[in-house]
Amino acid sequence: MQEMRYQIVKARVGHIIFETDTWGARAFDIILLCLILTSVLLVMLESVASLQAQYGALMRSVEWFFTAVFSLEYLLRVWSARKRWRYVFSFFGLIDLLSILPFYLSLFFDSSRYFLIIRALRLLRVFRVFKLSRYLGEANTLRRALRASRAKITVFIGTVVILVIVIGALMHVIEGEANGFDNIPKSAYWAIVTLTTVGYGDISPKTPLGQLVASLVMILGYGIIAVPTGIVTAEINQQKNRLERLQKSIENNPEAKHCPNCYSDEHQNDARYCRHCGGALAKIIS
Amino acid sequence: MQEMRYQIVKARVGHIIFETDTWGARAFDIILLCLILTSVLLVMLESVASLQAQYGALMRSVEWFFTAVFSLEYLLRVWSARKRWRYVFSFFGLIDLLSILPFYLSLFFDSSRYFLIIRALRLLRVFRVFKLSRYLGEANTLRRALRASRAKITVFIGTVVILVIVIGALMHVIEGEANGFDNIPKSAYWAIVTLTTVGYGDISPKTPLGQLVASLVMILGYGIIAVPTGIVTAEINQQKNRLERLQKSIENNPEAKHCPNCYSDEHQNDARYCRHCGGALAKIIS
Amino acid sequence: MQEMRYQIVKARVGHIIFETDTWGARAFDIILLCLILTSVLLVMLESVASLQAQYGALMRSVEWFFTAVFSLEYLLRVWSARKRWRYVFSFFGLIDLLSILPFYLSLFFDSSRYFLIIRALRLLRVFRVFKLSRYLGEANTLRRALRASRAKITVFIGTVVILVIVIGALMHVIEGEANGFDNIPKSAYWAIVTLTTVGYGDISPKTPLGQLVASLVMILGYGIIAVPTGIVTAEINQQKNRLERLQKSIENNPEAKHCPNCYSDEHQNDARYCRHCGGALAKIIS
Amino acid sequence: MQEMRYQIVKARVGHIIFETDTWGARAFDIILLCLILTSVLLVMLESVASLQAQYGALMRSVEWFFTAVFSLEYLLRVWSARKRWRYVFSFFGLIDLLSILPFYLSLFFDSSRYFLIIRALRLLRVFRVFKLSRYLGEANTLRRALRASRAKITVFIGTVVILVIVIGALMHVIEGEANGFDNIPKSAYWAIVTLTTVGYGDISPKTPLGQLVASLVMILGYGIIAVPTGIVTAEINQQKNRLERLQKSIENNPEAKHCPNCYSDEHQNDARYCRHCGGALAKIIS
Repeated sequence: MQEMRYQIVKARVGHIIFETDTWGARAFDIILLCLILTSVLLVMLESVASLQAQYGALMRSVEWFFTAVFSLEYLLRVWSARKRWRYVFSFFGLIDLLSILPFYLSLFFDSSRYFLIIRALRLLRVFRVFKLSRYLGEANTLRRALRASRAKITVFIGTVVILVIVIGALMHVIEGEANGFDNIPKSAYWAIVTLTTVGYGDISPKTPLGQLVASLVMILGYGIIAVPTGIVTAEINQQKNRLERLQKSIENNPEAKHCPNCYSDEHQNDARYCRHCGGALAKIIS
Repeated sequence: MQEMRYQIVKARVGHIIFETDTWGARAFDIILLCLILTSVLLVMLESVASLQAQYGALMRSVEWFFTAVFSLEYLLRVWSARKRWRYVFSFFGLIDLLSILPFYLSLFFDSSRYFLIIRALRLLRVFRVFKLSRYLGEANTLRRALRASRAKITVFIGTVVILVIVIGALMHVIEGEANGFDNIPKSAYWAIVTLTTVGYGDISPKTPLGQLVASLVMILGYGIIAVPTGIVTAEINQQKNRLERLQKSIENNPEAKHCPNCYSDEHQNDARYCRHCGGALAKIIS
Repeated sequence: MQEMRYQIVKARVGHIIFETDTWGARAFDIILLCLILTSVLLVMLESVASLQAQYGALMRSVEWFFTAVFSLEYLLRVWSARKRWRYVFSFFGLIDLLSILPFYLSLFFDSSRYFLIIRALRLLRVFRVFKLSRYLGEANTLRRALRASRAKITVFIGTVVILVIVIGALMHVIEGEANGFDNIPKSAYWAIVTLTTVGYGDISPKTPLGQLVASLVMILGYGIIAVPTGIVTAEINQQKNRLERLQKSIENNPEAKHCPNCYSDEHQNDARYCRHCGGALAKIIS
Repeated sequence: MQEMRYQIVKARVGHIIFETDTWGARAFDIILLCLILTSVLLVMLESVASLQAQYGALMRSVEWFFTAVFSLEYLLRVWSARKRWRYVFSFFGLIDLLSILPFYLSLFFDSSRYFLIIRALRLLRVFRVFKLSRYLGEANTLRRALRASRAKITVFIGTVVILVIVIGALMHVIEGEANGFDNIPKSAYWAIVTLTTVGYGDISPKTPLGQLVASLVMILGYGIIAVPTGIVTAEINQQKNRLERLQKSIENNPEAKHCPNCYSDEHQNDARYCRHCGGALAKIIS
């Protein structure tokens, strides 16, 4: 009896903490997000020397308060999670731990306190609260588009890295130490700054020959920047087309099971995987 | 009788001011646009110290003139508007008020005068005058494309903000105050300057480790810049395809009513909303 | 008889100068292009102070030589052109004149010599020589894509200009003269430098509030840069699709006349304009 | 007999060195890549003055070791290559030679050692080892997309170069030497830095007129940057559509030979070239 009431309380707490479908669970998540946001702002402001000098003691106390609240929340999560270890080693579980650990470490080592900023990653929870499914759906489209063009992106970045090293070496020889191109790594850093069109100007070619090479690199970068954009755009286009075709197929034959990969609709009623491509039939992208 | 003539004058003035379809109404709008343009240029030039010193008194008088004209126009608009309060609280109604208010305030507070620049927003009226429907149609396509990809853009900006804070904290720890990364907010500012490939160079990494992290951030930004482009492009593509399909459907069956949302054409003649998707049938995008 | 031989010589010279389809005409154009290229390089090098000091006299003589050649060529063109005045007032006719005029003017006014660089525009002739039709075809696709999205681009640039002025005024008030935001025009210049992600860093915000606003402007610019790309990409896509459909239509029914605008192929044999859309039938894009 | 064993050894060595399909060949390639990577890092670090001062002697010895290994590998490659001269004059053959030559030259001339960085190009071999076909397939899509839009890109770059020279001359006249626009080549360099939105800020306009022109150039660059992106995106889109159509055609009629260019499938069984477009039938893109 005692045990059962304990189980009920645990389940109810777990529901409030992990779900977002009841009034209480939603309120909990929103309050938590406000606390996280405030604590991230606090850590940011704490790093400002003038504010630190004036309100240092106050900030330290508020920090104590936040850490106490988040520690309590972490313990509650671990306690009430249905699959305890799965939570502890999940992405959010590790983030939750890493967002309180630095404070305790900072009692011994000073600089570790800045890593409290990892709390910012907890803000990713926001996507779970407000219209969860829809926003995650969008993130999924992006992620799928990125994953599909992974091979192209790898070839692209690999080529860019090799290019950057060769350009860096060339400019190091042309410009030399006198003009800030001290060594190949620093010249490669300049090449990246230039190819990505960031252009700080902390290092910039001074000799006519160097400026000529830099001009060529810039025009090259101009063309290169078009490549990832083209890849991602084409991929997003294709994801959209795929989705549209799936929707049309569902409209035409709403009874049948549809494969979200190959759009075939000739599946048996109890089929769980597509007999054409082997993809899971259950989860319809919508 | 008196009352009726008053109503006629009011309607005629209202037509000249709010519409663009008659000769008089068009002339009024074009003169108004020229006045707005001149007054915006005046406010800009007034802020130049050397010109202010030389022509300050003259500029002040012209400013008086413009404000008098715009005040008169505002009163006329309020008086002749068919739905008075709807105009007053509409976007352009508020802009019209805000574009004259600062001048009167500037008699008491000095710096408020610069907000006269809000007048520039009145220039948006230009799109109403020259080939109104066509340009607004284009703006609508853009707006619809942006609205359709709102969710994706929110996910994107949210992720970028979180990324920027984490990178900022990291660089603050790596580079420290000595190299300009004074505190986390400033480092986050640097991260935005870098990720967006603006790259002022007012703050730039000096240590080898900082330059390595900055290089990674730049290559990341290189890829990230592709995402909004891809989203907007795919959206514009889809808007165009939708429009094309609608036009084809109209060509095939010009008699029927067509839904601009789902292209169905099986509507009753007096239907005002699509029976499939609930969208308004009346306004055909063209 | 004399007259006739004169006409023949004139026609032959005109052919060599204006066409590219015979051996002689081609050779003439290539030699001309080399001369133009050399003379552009010369003007560029002449502006370098150290070279001017050393080889000034030599350069001046070579300049005399080039101008003499180009003047002679211009006179020959005017003389041999079939429609004399049409050439003189055509784009290339004016460029040809403007590329020799400054030199004669420079005998009286010094700085006008730099405008010899207008000669660079003559290099546009290069597209006429090497695989003329193909390259111009490509340029046509680009131009048509740009023209089709003219309305969208106008709305876009108009909005950007208004935005830049408002942001400029805002930053002028926030940062003030002390930090380089001297007046609204200069602040607007900064806003353009930032929105376009150029980011010289000659002016950059120093106050925390200014840096916050600048960050928002950059993220805005990040999104805005996606819009023209999206517009142009969608337009190029559509041009390609149109072309593809036309080619398919020609393949299916090679005998008929095809309208390059609406792809209809039900034209009478002697029709010169499309009876559906009024477009010219003669010139098939290919 | 002796000769035959020699031939077998040669073939086996050749297989290990040039192929990637056996365990030994793969191991050889991976070890080689690690060696190349380490040696590139070494050359980069060697250029850092502080490291050179401390570990110069050590680095020099390791360099000797790497060069010895790579020389041995080169000799083995030349010896075991099935078509010796074809390898020697192939892209990778020349790179292999150029990656060891500079070290021997550096015994006589000092600066040539930096060109050891050409070894970085050998890293391109990485694409051959890890999932060769797939990554090269992606590179092929990119390459084909780039080749297909070569004409457009040429027109585009030609126009940009001419534009840059004209803008450079204009700014040289407006700003003059006092503000860093010393001569036309340097001003053209500035124009490239601005048009590509790199924006170092080492040269930036100071006069109001110069800033106005620079603003126009930037907005122009804003629009221009959209063009290559649009071209590449449209091209990638088309490559994908082509591939999809080919796959669909193969699915519908898996027995027939398919032309990867025009998708026709009416070829005789022993046909090697497409009878419609003349493209090779053998290599199916997949």
